[in-house]
Formats: sequence, structure tokens, C-alpha cells
Amino acid sequence: MPISNDAFGQALYDYLRGSADREVIERDDGYVDTSDGPQVYFRPYRSWPRHEREALRLARGRVLDVGCGAGRHALHLQQKGVPVVAIDASPLAVRVCRLRGVTDARVMNVTGVSAALGPVDTVLLMGNNFGLVRNPTTARWLLQRLYTITSGGARIIAETMDPYTTKRQAHLDYHKRNRARGRMPGQVRIRVRYMKHKTPWFDYLFVSRDELRAIVHGTGWRVARLIDSDGPVYVAVLEKDGYDGRSARGSHRV
Amino acid sequence: MPISNDAFGQALYDYLRGSADREVIERDDGYVDTSDGPQVYFRPYRSWPRHEREALRLARGRVLDVGCGAGRHALHLQQKGVPVVAIDASPLAVRVCRLRGVTDARVMNVTGVSAALGPVDTVLLMGNNFGLVRNPTTARWLLQRLYTITSGGARIIAETMDPYTTKRQAHLDYHKRNRARGRMPGQVRIRVRYMKHKTPWFDYLFVSRDELRAIVHGTGWRVARLIDSDGPVYVAVLEKDGYDGRSARGSHRV
Repeated sequence: MPISNDAFGQALYDYLRGSADREVIERDDGYVDTSDGPQVYFRPYRSWPRHEREALRLARGRVLDVGCGAGRHALHLQQKGVPVVAIDASPLAVRVCRLRGVTDARVMNVTGVSAALGPVDTVLLMGNNFGLVRNPTTARWLLQRLYTITSGGARIIAETMDPYTTKRQAHLDYHKRNRARGRMPGQVRIRVRYMKHKTPWFDYLFVSRDELRAIVHGTGWRVARLIDSDGPVYVAVLEKDGYDGRSARGSHRV
Repeated sequence: MPISNDAFGQALYDYLRGSADREVIERDDGYVDTSDGPQVYFRPYRSWPRHEREALRLARGRVLDVGCGAGRHALHLQQKGVPVVAIDASPLAVRVCRLRGVTDARVMNVTGVSAALGPVDTVLLMGNNFGLVRNPTTARWLLQRLYTITSGGARIIAETMDPYTTKRQAHLDYHKRNRARGRMPGQVRIRVRYMKHKTPWFDYLFVSRDELRAIVHGTGWRVARLIDSDGPVYVAVLEKDGYDGRSARGSHRV
């Protein structure tokens, strides 16, 4: 096995083949954390936390699953008859998705989304994948781009984590350091390590509900609904400003 | 909490206070692995694997527990009325031992052992802690030193892991790299990382049964018995050359 920068995909691929190794998340201040293990990305619907099930029930129309991982959301929607395009920057994650039966999985960075993907009614950014927007500038650029390539009644269903609920000193220090550098406190620069594989360093953004609203403001989207979890994680449902169709609160799964 | 080099002890200490974070083991070739978590160091006797229980039953007389971790072996022996001196290079591990009730726990590196510790009849190097000998040279030096400070019928009960049972390419490559550098294939240079804490890099030695015999040869000790586990881990019971007391095979717990 060659050493690659696809540490995340390699962990998923090896898990599919029976390995039990976990990824390590390394932050640029030297902080290391271990993941809950790749199995999280393979969990079936019945094992998802309540907020995740609730979020997925709001998907409607043709779905773009951004950062699809091992395809747990795409597979669930497919089984319900919902058309899904699943994208992930990790070639091995996409390979895992295909092996597991995701019919339309593509290697693509979130910044690569375009009208070439075809009509999109729901954009999923689950698994904390609102973080893929990297920073507030890219976030606004991406939200505007998603606005142009999605249908009038489209939704973005985005999961993130409120970074301010922690009491851990290392995290509080990191927020402070970020502020001093003009970065958002929850803008972490990390890389994934798995055996000898390392991704490049990348930014990943965690935001509070207020910060999210501030980012969304002026992009054409509005926060139509927030779904809380039992912890710091929450899901934001974005709808287009002025869209007068059914609201997120009242709609049902397609 | 200040950033320290006592990453291992910090993980044990935090676990005692309720944290569930794991340590990360980083090898000098860039390979990372995650531990099974600090809870391993807190397991009660009934949860130990068979070979570990069997090994502890061979402890007799006054016991020196080297690299005592969170004190699981020391506490078990104490409960049986066996006198134990527990040492660990990690100040926080020793603090954890004391908090958990180990009566004689001391901050001491294995190379610091001397007659000042008082009479010793059994030396424990469990939890793969034969590895603490670092390399074959220090190993022989330490075995000779332990020979001089222990009683005539003394035993060393040492756990290690046969490094050659792996099929993982990254490990086979590492063996090759070690050989090219004149190091033993199982001589890993690693550090423990936990949150922002990092130990210094240190050598830790894994040996096959034959390599162990070769190291022990000429130190005054002989391999009296080997206890296999279900995996690559095994325990070697060393006794003094020419000692004609009860053999390890036939003895019982004090």
C-alpha cells in the first residue's frame, strides 16, 4: 500500500475490509485527538442520533451529498427512492461509496460544485461538514454558488458544532490564538493521520448559531430552522430568502 | 493545565477524573496509532487476559513493579498481601497509583533501580514493559543490574510482543529500516501524544522468543518459562542460572 494523502479515505477503505484502526486528528497547535473510528461513517439509519435522522427527513427532491464519506446518508436516501449525487474530495471514500452501492458518487471538492451536477433541490453538509466551507469568506462564496445552482425551493441541511461549549483549556487557548490571527475562533487548521498517511493541512470551520446566521446573511439564504442534538452539534436548515413554499418546519420526506 | 511531557500520565490522570480521550502513539517514521485507551491500565484482575492472570500468579516474595502505570498489578498483589514497590517514570502515573491506594509508588526510571529499593524477589515488567529496556545493550545492562539487587531465587516476569507476526507493510518496512541502521527490527522509536502533551522520543523494544533468549544469555538469567497469549504478546519468566529452587512451572502465588 503506497503512502498517500488520502488518510481519511484509506481509513474508510480499510474499515470496509475489516480493519479496526482509528484516524488521528492533528491540529496545528500540536493538539491531537482520535476519531470515534471509521465505523461512524458506516452506521445505518437506526443507529443515527435523533437530530441526524430528523435532518435527513427534511431532504427533498434531488439531493447533493457533500463530503459523503462512506455514503451512509446517500445510501439511506437511495433506499427511499430519493435521487442522490454524492461527492467527496477523497478518492478512496468515493470508492467505498461505490462498493457499498451508491449509484452516483464522484470525486469532487466542495468548491468544484457547479450546474454541471444537474438540478439540485437539497444540499447535505452532514457529519459536521458545514466545516468544509473552511472560513467565512469561502463560506459566503460557496453559499452564493449553491444559491445559483439549486432550485427555487432548495434547502441546505448543514451540520456543525458550537465551538464555545467546551471548557477544555487547550481549545479555549486555540480560540484566543485564532482571534489574535484574525481567524474565527472555531476555524481549526487540522490534518487527518492514519497509519503513515497524512492529509495536507486544511481549515475546517465550527460556528455558533449566531456566527452561522451572520455568515448566511446576505447570501440569498436564511436560517429557516435549527435542529439541536444532545451535545454541541446542531443542524441548520437554510432556505432561500423570500421563498414562499412549504417551510422546513412543516415539510416531510420525499 | 500546563503542557507537559507526561502525556501518558496525563491520560491516566484524566481517565481517573472521567475523561475518555485516548493517547496517540507516534513512531519516528510518521506512523501513528491510537491506544486502546487508558482504561486498559485500570482493569481489574477478572478482566485481564488469561496469560496476564497466569503471569501474576507467578509473583512471589517482595515484588518490584516496573512501569506500574495506573497500578493494576500492584493493587492486585497488595490485596493478596504481597508487598510491592511500584515504580514509573511518569509522575502523574505514580500520582494515580497513590490515589488508587498503591502504598509504595515511586517516580523512578527503570535505569534508576538499585539496592536502595530493598530486597526484591520478583520483578514485574508487564504491559509490554520488557520494552523499557530500550535496546539489547541496555537490556543486558539492566538484567545484570537486576541480578545483583534481587534475591537468589528471584524471578523476572516480563511481557513483550513478537514483532514478526505482523503482515502490515508499514511495520515490515520499519523492521527493514531498523536493520539497515543496525537496530533490532522491533526496536521502535516512539513518543506518546495526548492532547497537547508529548513525551520525548524514546526507544521501546519488542523481541521474538529467540531474540529474547539471545539477550538474556550471559546475564545470569535464563528463560525458565514462556506464557503465550492469544496473540503476538507473550510473557517470559526469567530465573537465575543454576538456581535450584522451585521452578516457575511448579510454583504458586505467595
